[in-house]
Amino acid sequence: MEIILKPVGYARHSSESVPRHWSVSDVEGDLVLDPEYLPAMADIEAGSRIVVLFHFDRSEPFTPGHLRQTPPHKDRPMGVFSICSPVRPNPIGLSVLTVLGVAENVIRVRGLDLLDHTPILDIKPHIEAPA
Amino acid sequence: MEIILKPVGYARHSSESVPRHWSVSDVEGDLVLDPEYLPAMADIEAGSRIVVLFHFDRSEPFTPGHLRQTPPHKDRPMGVFSICSPVRPNPIGLSVLTVLGVAENVIRVRGLDLLDHTPILDIKPHIEAPA
Repeated sequence: MEIILKPVGYARHSSESVPRHWSVSDVEGDLVLDPEYLPAMADIEAGSRIVVLFHFDRSEPFTPGHLRQTPPHKDRPMGVFSICSPVRPNPIGLSVLTVLGVAENVIRVRGLDLLDHTPILDIKPHIEAPA
Repeated sequence: MEIILKPVGYARHSSESVPRHWSVSDVEGDLVLDPEYLPAMADIEAGSRIVVLFHFDRSEPFTPGHLRQTPPHKDRPMGVFSICSPVRPNPIGLSVLTVLGVAENVIRVRGLDLLDHTPILDIKPHIEAPA
């Protein structure tokens, strides 16, 4: 069974590089959504956090050699389901971003670890796990 | 541009129903992964939380009429990017689950809001957003 997805927009920023992870990023930029999704953006509020799912569109293809990988800040190989590597069985990334503002079909955000022009697949509300 | 995904496993449980959201669920069950992904599971530990991405395989197709939807616990339509509806532009779901144990290619979890036999797309470590 195959599942076919289509981007709803893309990330846009002018940083030459981004941190390895959203949790250590202060990079600001935009999520530019296709105008057809304007009604879907109606309740996204400045100051809130959102979960952004995106396509790792510039990652190398996943092979059995990527089942375990050594993350940049670790000293041993770890199973890919326990790390945030962009080389995954399904190349979907997840970032938790802070909304700075919304204007028309553009969401201004802080915390980017996405490369410029990364395709966006979904936006969800950020819900804290209960203690 | 289209993105093609392939499940890495499926959810399995015997609950007749599941709560509307993982944050209010105590349902226990299994994530059964394809054995080829055994090495990718190596560092998933009991007691930890994991982020599970899955395919809403039994949701109706998304149409413009779904851009805003009234959630079961709200009294007005909201933009789909601000709610957890299973009817989304890209039918990908996200649950934060607690790992109870790992045996071979099966991860025992608590907090399920996935229907039995939902296809699993990815597992990631759960990382808290900085305060």
